[in-house]
Amino acid sequence: MKDFIYNTPTKVYFGKDTEKQVGSIIREYGYKKIMMQYGKGSVKKSGLYDVVINSLTENGIEVVEMGGVEPNPKITFVREAIKVAKKEQVELILAVGGGSVIDSCKYTALGAKADCDVWDFSMGKQKPVDALPVACILTMAAAGSEMSNSAVITNLELNMKKGCSTEFNRLKFAIMNPELTFTVSDYQTACGVVDIMSHTMERYFTVHEPTDLTDRIAESILISVIDAAKVLVENPTDYNARATIMWASSLSHNGLTGCGRENYLAVHQLEHALSGEFDRVAHGAGLAVLFPAWMKYIYKENPQRFAQFARRVFGVCESDDIKAAEKGIDKIKEFFAYIKMPLTLRELGIEKQSIERLADLCTYGKTREIKSYLPLDYQRVKEIFELSF
Amino acid sequence: MKDFIYNTPTKVYFGKDTEKQVGSIIREYGYKKIMMQYGKGSVKKSGLYDVVINSLTENGIEVVEMGGVEPNPKITFVREAIKVAKKEQVELILAVGGGSVIDSCKYTALGAKADCDVWDFSMGKQKPVDALPVACILTMAAAGSEMSNSAVITNLELNMKKGCSTEFNRLKFAIMNPELTFTVSDYQTACGVVDIMSHTMERYFTVHEPTDLTDRIAESILISVIDAAKVLVENPTDYNARATIMWASSLSHNGLTGCGRENYLAVHQLEHALSGEFDRVAHGAGLAVLFPAWMKYIYKENPQRFAQFARRVFGVCESDDIKAAEKGIDKIKEFFAYIKMPLTLRELGIEKQSIERLADLCTYGKTREIKSYLPLDYQRVKEIFELSF
Repeated sequence: MKDFIYNTPTKVYFGKDTEKQVGSIIREYGYKKIMMQYGKGSVKKSGLYDVVINSLTENGIEVVEMGGVEPNPKITFVREAIKVAKKEQVELILAVGGGSVIDSCKYTALGAKADCDVWDFSMGKQKPVDALPVACILTMAAAGSEMSNSAVITNLELNMKKGCSTEFNRLKFAIMNPELTFTVSDYQTACGVVDIMSHTMERYFTVHEPTDLTDRIAESILISVIDAAKVLVENPTDYNARATIMWASSLSHNGLTGCGRENYLAVHQLEHALSGEFDRVAHGAGLAVLFPAWMKYIYKENPQRFAQFARRVFGVCESDDIKAAEKGIDKIKEFFAYIKMPLTLRELGIEKQSIERLADLCTYGKTREIKSYLPLDYQRVKEIFELSF
Repeated sequence: MKDFIYNTPTKVYFGKDTEKQVGSIIREYGYKKIMMQYGKGSVKKSGLYDVVINSLTENGIEVVEMGGVEPNPKITFVREAIKVAKKEQVELILAVGGGSVIDSCKYTALGAKADCDVWDFSMGKQKPVDALPVACILTMAAAGSEMSNSAVITNLELNMKKGCSTEFNRLKFAIMNPELTFTVSDYQTACGVVDIMSHTMERYFTVHEPTDLTDRIAESILISVIDAAKVLVENPTDYNARATIMWASSLSHNGLTGCGRENYLAVHQLEHALSGEFDRVAHGAGLAVLFPAWMKYIYKENPQRFAQFARRVFGVCESDDIKAAEKGIDKIKEFFAYIKMPLTLRELGIEKQSIERLADLCTYGKTREIKSYLPLDYQRVKEIFELSF
């Protein structure tokens, strides 16, 4: 087991009607003026917006609103929000939405306490030294941003989607009511499921063994998420299934599944190039295409581990590790197909001639290798994209 | 799934040599004067004391020492420590030791910010409203106090061992180096294993189903701890086994295993009466005797759950729930015997005539029932103790 630091300071309020507590919770912390960010208006349609505003105003909290956060949130929006946050001297940033809104808020919070341009944090040119506190009311179970130390932002000028990981990105608190996800579409629910599974599997398929406890916790998350996702295909308003997936989204990405292991997220880096280049590609859908391809490309580097995954998560009965590993890859593709995720780049409408450009983006113009069982250089990344076609 | 609040703010520094960082970590937080508590001197023999003092003085931290914390820590010691902490105006309490030292520090930290006697917190007469920050260097994997919100203290005048649960009991940070537990005796290691398993199982065997994800995480902890404990019987200095048990001690009791479930700890309440009355009884040994007896007494109230436990944790193959549940109870007794834990009150040197007194202590003189699948009143508690004989 590798040394690690475990830091999950985010206080979670989980359950029915918890969104109604937002005003009193913020008042308890002593904040009087906040910025609230949300997306393209679904929170207004659902009525959540009114609930939140009522709770805030009842508790005497002054609110500066920034609606309109897009999926794959944009650096341009964040820069605008930072200006407003500074000018209005807000004390906390509240995200009402999913991972995109939370990530937009995280970048805003970093920028509000910085003199540089926040894109410098993505490029590693500057390191964050402070941030405003961030909190959320979660409406989508997927990104795990509600408890993670990471945030990802898209720069359309540069066609880049790139993150910043820092402990300043840990939320102060997260309000999670599974009922708020009842209306998330089947497609977006499935995308979320793939994202949660990927956060878990990315850390599972790294070096530094044995980490039996971490392995088993990761397998627990995967089994529960798969079972819950199957329930939701039949009944999208099953409370326990929604609750399982919501809680799993947090646990998969808050550090728990990486304790004692390396934490490089190889497939995520391939996918960020994909949805950075093609803004219409949902992150989870991109992962559904790329994960099995990456597995197929790499499993022979550590067949025992892929076999353990197949046996424990999918109950594969097969004594030969190579065969078990292969069956596990088939099983995960079957599952992704069952929840109606795409399995090829072609299904995402990506043409073969884009592959070189994608491999180039991943490797910053052939200048870096992505950590994995094999270091993924330009050529290998290209081969994985070809396997995904 | 039941609503819950999840709050684990304790930052964990896990791995080899982490104890050497203590001074720099405390300096980073900005504390200049601390109280350090430890036990009866094993930290001096092991050399840990010198390492810690060196790290603290190198970083300019002034230290007020309070050595001599006893197992089942005593309220008299705590009262003394509170006086010193107030007089010296220390800013943080550092525990160097196991659960007893940490609990002593937690009570000291509560008392240092209170005007009342801290025993009032145990008796529920007063509620904590503030506390000094507490941190630890953990030397024993057992109590889980390093991440929990609870602390337990013994009042010898009243022959009572009674706890206080409050979010003020959450540690600021915990330093965990599994190597520091290499020298823990086989007996104390086994006691720790039973305590960790009990913290997990107490929450597992409550109502509010389905909580599949929480169940599987609990089962993961149990399987990993059992496997690691078996390794340590053969090789007490196996790093990964020690690391597994140390990390499991934290996860079993920080709230994770209780998410979405009731969190009453019935068997712990029986055991606190036992080791409160008989100070020589180690908490883990008391639990090893009482847990199987409680299971035997209660399993027919929820055979499905006890059968799930038997099948998933011990791999019992048996389709009938009652029979599977019974086999699970046999298996856990076999395991406790394998790690050389006592299985009867007689082995602990307790005589049968003590049972009524113990049942009386548990139920505060027949005035309360302990929550469980069946409410445990005086008569039922007595029957469980009789089954333990």
